[in-house]
Amino acid sequence: MTVHNEALRDHACLIVHGPDQPGIVAAVSALVSRNKGNIVALDQYSDNADGGAFFQRVVFHRPNLAAAMPEIEADLAETVGGLGLEWKLTDQSVPKRMAILASTSDHCLLELLWRHRRGELPVTIPMVISNHTNVADDVRSFGIPFFHVPSQGPDKSEAEARILELLKGNVDFVVLARYMQIISEDFLDAVEVPVINIHHSFLPAFIGAGPYKKAKERGVKLIGATSHYVTKDLDEGPIIEQDVARVDHSMTAADLQARGAYVERAVLSRAVQWHAEDRVIRHGNHTIVF
Amino acid sequence: MTVHNEALRDHACLIVHGPDQPGIVAAVSALVSRNKGNIVALDQYSDNADGGAFFQRVVFHRPNLAAAMPEIEADLAETVGGLGLEWKLTDQSVPKRMAILASTSDHCLLELLWRHRRGELPVTIPMVISNHTNVADDVRSFGIPFFHVPSQGPDKSEAEARILELLKGNVDFVVLARYMQIISEDFLDAVEVPVINIHHSFLPAFIGAGPYKKAKERGVKLIGATSHYVTKDLDEGPIIEQDVARVDHSMTAADLQARGAYVERAVLSRAVQWHAEDRVIRHGNHTIVF
Amino acid sequence: MTVHNEALRDHACLIVHGPDQPGIVAAVSALVSRNKGNIVALDQYSDNADGGAFFQRVVFHRPNLAAAMPEIEADLAETVGGLGLEWKLTDQSVPKRMAILASTSDHCLLELLWRHRRGELPVTIPMVISNHTNVADDVRSFGIPFFHVPSQGPDKSEAEARILELLKGNVDFVVLARYMQIISEDFLDAVEVPVINIHHSFLPAFIGAGPYKKAKERGVKLIGATSHYVTKDLDEGPIIEQDVARVDHSMTAADLQARGAYVERAVLSRAVQWHAEDRVIRHGNHTIVF
Amino acid sequence: MTVHNEALRDHACLIVHGPDQPGIVAAVSALVSRNKGNIVALDQYSDNADGGAFFQRVVFHRPNLAAAMPEIEADLAETVGGLGLEWKLTDQSVPKRMAILASTSDHCLLELLWRHRRGELPVTIPMVISNHTNVADDVRSFGIPFFHVPSQGPDKSEAEARILELLKGNVDFVVLARYMQIISEDFLDAVEVPVINIHHSFLPAFIGAGPYKKAKERGVKLIGATSHYVTKDLDEGPIIEQDVARVDHSMTAADLQARGAYVERAVLSRAVQWHAEDRVIRHGNHTIVF
Repeated sequence: MTVHNEALRDHACLIVHGPDQPGIVAAVSALVSRNKGNIVALDQYSDNADGGAFFQRVVFHRPNLAAAMPEIEADLAETVGGLGLEWKLTDQSVPKRMAILASTSDHCLLELLWRHRRGELPVTIPMVISNHTNVADDVRSFGIPFFHVPSQGPDKSEAEARILELLKGNVDFVVLARYMQIISEDFLDAVEVPVINIHHSFLPAFIGAGPYKKAKERGVKLIGATSHYVTKDLDEGPIIEQDVARVDHSMTAADLQARGAYVERAVLSRAVQWHAEDRVIRHGNHTIVF
Repeated sequence: MTVHNEALRDHACLIVHGPDQPGIVAAVSALVSRNKGNIVALDQYSDNADGGAFFQRVVFHRPNLAAAMPEIEADLAETVGGLGLEWKLTDQSVPKRMAILASTSDHCLLELLWRHRRGELPVTIPMVISNHTNVADDVRSFGIPFFHVPSQGPDKSEAEARILELLKGNVDFVVLARYMQIISEDFLDAVEVPVINIHHSFLPAFIGAGPYKKAKERGVKLIGATSHYVTKDLDEGPIIEQDVARVDHSMTAADLQARGAYVERAVLSRAVQWHAEDRVIRHGNHTIVF
Repeated sequence: MTVHNEALRDHACLIVHGPDQPGIVAAVSALVSRNKGNIVALDQYSDNADGGAFFQRVVFHRPNLAAAMPEIEADLAETVGGLGLEWKLTDQSVPKRMAILASTSDHCLLELLWRHRRGELPVTIPMVISNHTNVADDVRSFGIPFFHVPSQGPDKSEAEARILELLKGNVDFVVLARYMQIISEDFLDAVEVPVINIHHSFLPAFIGAGPYKKAKERGVKLIGATSHYVTKDLDEGPIIEQDVARVDHSMTAADLQARGAYVERAVLSRAVQWHAEDRVIRHGNHTIVF
Repeated sequence: MTVHNEALRDHACLIVHGPDQPGIVAAVSALVSRNKGNIVALDQYSDNADGGAFFQRVVFHRPNLAAAMPEIEADLAETVGGLGLEWKLTDQSVPKRMAILASTSDHCLLELLWRHRRGELPVTIPMVISNHTNVADDVRSFGIPFFHVPSQGPDKSEAEARILELLKGNVDFVVLARYMQIISEDFLDAVEVPVINIHHSFLPAFIGAGPYKKAKERGVKLIGATSHYVTKDLDEGPIIEQDVARVDHSMTAADLQARGAYVERAVLSRAVQWHAEDRVIRHGNHTIVF
């Protein structure tokens, strides 16, 4: 049922993290080697050589990877698990399933759909959900299912329940592409997959609503956008990517918003791509991006 | 007694601002024309065509400018003043006198001294004042007087009084080049010239002390610097210029600080240059930068 | 028959250029004033105060502009023409008519169509012409006519004749949105409107075909894109806008091309917008961009 | 006799490159491990998984490194050499000795001296050589020896011989900090250490003399700088780093040069730092920068 990317056939991505200790890289390299893998990319980072946390991402090529996965995972459990480290092994040729939640703005949504159509995002998109209908035709022109889940009144629980029903079991992560509804704690608990947001400011500046208006009022000379994992604390989740654009005194808040849209779509696209390629490791309120 | 810049000989800069109304540009252009000036640069901005504020900067060449200044000023008072507008006329060949206040960090200070030596900053530097002595030799090697005003204990009033004594009548603006002392309201009231600061963050993110440490804790992917006019509200003054640099998870707070130093010196240098060239107009808590 | 932009109703753009001389700005300002216009933006530039060329762009608001145009033009002919200067007056509320020529790549084409739909480009798009058909559905989904003009064999004159037939009288400028056919001198002579191209390198580096392959071979650390007016000399026309993106040793020529596509669409979009807003003045092989 | 950097005490940097083959990373990791090293950074790259070239940089901590070096080198010769790979092991706490050649311009020279004084460049600077004397006092104020080697007339061989005499045995690499003399092939053959240059354009645009003048004539919208290893082919050596800055029509060639100076010093500083940290591997006419 999965879509396979031929260029990534038989490529595995292994993420390892946990307490730093001598010999991890050697142990992992030996494991890959004895499982007939050839390392094609390797990144590692330790936040403190003395007693810190260790992070590693290894991509390796292994003929007949799919068949060998159980065996490699057993080895990982023993070897890497034995060192007290966490690990995750993924087949790179199996794209992650990404749902997009949107509202009326189309810039982030269309950017993701375009990049996906060009083969630049290693994901499938089983659905786009919006609390509005204006983007329905655009989405369906890409051959992607569109679901309308209206969000009216103060009680969002019914809408959220409907969204959860659509997502459950069908997606590996969720992207809020300028989705203008606050996500509840209950939803985050229930969804069980990572949720990525794009905030239209250079966080932690201008937290909350109306950042372009606040930016205009403060008279900043750059505006920005921030993509982060959604947590229970609004706009406080681990940052994946940020960028800025130059503005000047002559621009209105509406001009800032129009300019900022181009920063938002670029920042969100990069964050989504890195997440989809297993390049982002969450650690407390930070990310390691390899 | 003034130092003259030959390339700017007989060039005047006229700043006009006040309530917008039809015909200001024409009135100013006609004034320049009848006073035998030839416009070489003109910028203007209105924050709202209907009843907003109007801002204009005109640079014009006028043979024998110095002799004609009183006459032009009389015309301005009648014509432009008559429209209810404020104006300021300066002879561009007369550099502004800039004092620099510094502490132990040398990166912003040296950058300004060196750009000045290269002839890129249209200022004279009558003095550098520091609460430390480590930069004294460097400053004097540029042929610039250095004064040490120690700042000990909680009561800064004596040190500030000494600094005011040095500045009074001798400078047109003051630059805090990573001067690590809080400036009191009394000092700001007494100094009577603009004071420009460089803050080591992308304001309004990370207001106050230790911004690089806070940036590390928040896990941002860009760090920044902000140059602004100093007001009574700490880190809240009108922003002149900002910029950022990319960082990643592997960098410590000390790494961010080292990287940020290069953003700080660039941002402060641009702000100082623009101020010295009369390109910056303050309006409420904003700046118009032409 | 024309589409009107309400925000720009009664706004005129006046371009003046020619030999510099004292008093031009004053003369133009007075002209605007006596024709009941109120200047809302003004840029001017002289490439040499002594005997150089002068360039000015003035945007002014004038109630009932359309009716007053002939009168203002008569005044311009006398006043500005009388000073030996060239001038052009346009009603900003009348969008320029832009044709797009494309081939198989969709990134520049879709970006322009989408920015147009968002109301960010002050143009109408009467047609998209391509020598391929793959983008037909996308184009028509934006409500824009699509014409297929195949380009086979070495003799392009028939295809060019067909394109000219479609364009003639219907467009104010033509954009080559990664159109992969060489435009003949005869076509340029016949088309009689400006033609804007996007070249996929940082000109003058990597002139001609295959710039990403050449960039990979040379081992550059940045790739770029350049938008320019098309002239008879391939890739040598006046540059309107350029930008770059960072790359590294690990990227293949195909990776550079994929990354570069995002620079191309941004650079071309800015060039098109500035041209459509009458911000670009050609002068020899240069552009002045206000 | 060497200066030691305490933070890098007992840190080794190992560079490995040669024909790609399965198991290299594992073999190297095992070697580091059995020699009691703990990997703190690791980068690797293969330019083609099938029969391409492989490149790896490993930094590891090893107590009492200096004493263990011969033993580790013997292991490397057997293990890594046995795989047909080239390798180089350096003690990171031993800074490289860098000579700077300069002419009249001081911006690149002073930037390197400042960064060195701040402890940001892991080098010693045994000498600065110039064919002019204007920077002598500045250089000596940093406590660094200055040698004046005039370069008059068409025959540079005497001057080059004198420079070689000064360099021979005393330096690990040479930096041309806007040194305005062409280096002869004989000099390059004789000097036997890498020579890094800063070219004042975005290569391969504007090769040769007068790039800012050429940039002005071409009407580019960005100017750049390129740092590269010097080879016998002028401006054609492997590129280490590049960057650009935005310019506009109003800037003269002299303005471009003044603006470009800030790009040059930043680009050269990064190239020097990366070279000094053994992050740059030359491969044909390319560099891999880890």
